Amino acid sequence: MMISIQQVLDYLIAPIGLLENTVDRLETGKPDTEVTGIGVTFMPTYHVIQQAIELGINLLITHEGIYYSHQCSPELLQNDPVYLQKRRLIEESGIAIFRLHDYIHKYKPDMITSGLIQAMNWEGYIERVHPNSTIVDLPEMTVAEIANDMKLKLRIPYVRIVGDRLLSCKRAGILVGYRGGGTNVIPLFTAENLDVVIVGEGPEWEAPEYVRDAAQQGRQTALIVMGHAESEAPGMRALAKQLQAVYHPLPVHFMEERPLFQIG
Amino acid sequence: MMISIQQVLDYLIAPIGLLENTVDRLETGKPDTEVTGIGVTFMPTYHVIQQAIELGINLLITHEGIYYSHQCSPELLQNDPVYLQKRRLIEESGIAIFRLHDYIHKYKPDMITSGLIQAMNWEGYIERVHPNSTIVDLPEMTVAEIANDMKLKLRIPYVRIVGDRLLSCKRAGILVGYRGGGTNVIPLFTAENLDVVIVGEGPEWEAPEYVRDAAQQGRQTALIVMGHAESEAPGMRALAKQLQAVYHPLPVHFMEERPLFQIG
Repeated sequence: MMISIQQVLDYLIAPIGLLENTVDRLETGKPDTEVTGIGVTFMPTYHVIQQAIELGINLLITHEGIYYSHQCSPELLQNDPVYLQKRRLIEESGIAIFRLHDYIHKYKPDMITSGLIQAMNWEGYIERVHPNSTIVDLPEMTVAEIANDMKLKLRIPYVRIVGDRLLSCKRAGILVGYRGGGTNVIPLFTAENLDVVIVGEGPEWEAPEYVRDAAQQGRQTALIVMGHAESEAPGMRALAKQLQAVYHPLPVHFMEERPLFQIG
Repeated sequence: MMISIQQVLDYLIAPIGLLENTVDRLETGKPDTEVTGIGVTFMPTYHVIQQAIELGINLLITHEGIYYSHQCSPELLQNDPVYLQKRRLIEESGIAIFRLHDYIHKYKPDMITSGLIQAMNWEGYIERVHPNSTIVDLPEMTVAEIANDMKLKLRIPYVRIVGDRLLSCKRAGILVGYRGGGTNVIPLFTAENLDVVIVGEGPEWEAPEYVRDAAQQGRQTALIVMGHAESEAPGMRALAKQLQAVYHPLPVHFMEERPLFQIG
């Protein structure tokens, strides 16, 4: 049975319905092309695209944009050699790339957040699901134990911690991606009586400085900053698993990348 | 000779003249108060303010805002216990706090950037000074050697690196604070033929992903992310040194903080 790119996109969009204002779109490729293989990734790096081509994938579903900006507007890059080489690789391969950012965050529940919670085996501890955050009530453990558990289960080399590593925690707020800003994180500590907030990424002078002050005031408060990719890749991995079941026997690969940063 | 807070502010503002639109302002305290001691800091954390009070400082000059946002608008925090306790400490002490962000960045040269370059002993290597960046032509060394030199000279525990740690570098761009975004960093690599860019902070999916792609394409390109505070505190330290000379024998202290993040 032939499956077209449009059919896969329809499947991905169906839980929400077509959005008017969204960064999600078919960046390259044609909707009526038959899908021969699907790749799912957090970030379509140069290596990910090369590997996808080698694997015979002709539809790559990516959470973040191809060209280093949320709006993925490459106008500023017209003469940039890195941009040009990446665009040439994509064009010559004919690979279709679909950006799946807003839809998957709007699934109920947000599949990017729930993918992380599943990867942590924390589904049983979910207390409340907000649009931008999920609250979990964990078995008592220290910040360092949570961090170690994250490193082990998510296979990430490090997290960054603000506050006391030996602080005992139960109530945690989880905010993936760039939801780590102060207006999201700071009110949540009081509203949800949280011991620790776990974020992907956010400005350093906002939530991290709030948590530093709170800790200096003797409050039992900590922050774990995972990294943007580290917090969102598990959700895209969960999507790949779902698509494997839906489109079997069509090959569906989750395309993993190495950590963006090395500690030096 | 009596020195008023206003006289110190006049001195700080003089190189630029009064700005219309700025986040810089006397957040607390009165301009006609006599200065008994000056503190200079990157971030007025709860500990920094406590220490300033203990040292008899009644004017604290800070680069970043008191309450976890660039605009330092605490309206959202009205009932927040961390905010309230910090505000009470400030009010009960009567300490004056002056935000010095925009002025010092507009000094010619930007004193926050030049303070970092001085702390690295790189003044002799400056090639070009742009409003948002400075280009240095360094003696040939690897990314890892630059990182180690930064850790040693700036006494910081780590930096984060994208690209090959063993890449040999000469031409480096330096962008302090939150200037690490893609629109600042990406064009600079080509325009200035840079091997490495050194930034304070920026969105992970912009410049870092650009550098990852460039490295995956085999280009000799790397990025060092220092941390926001780590990149800007040296400039405030340089200001403290200058004020010590100007206002001698008035006590002027640089108020240092421990690193915001621990690697876990």
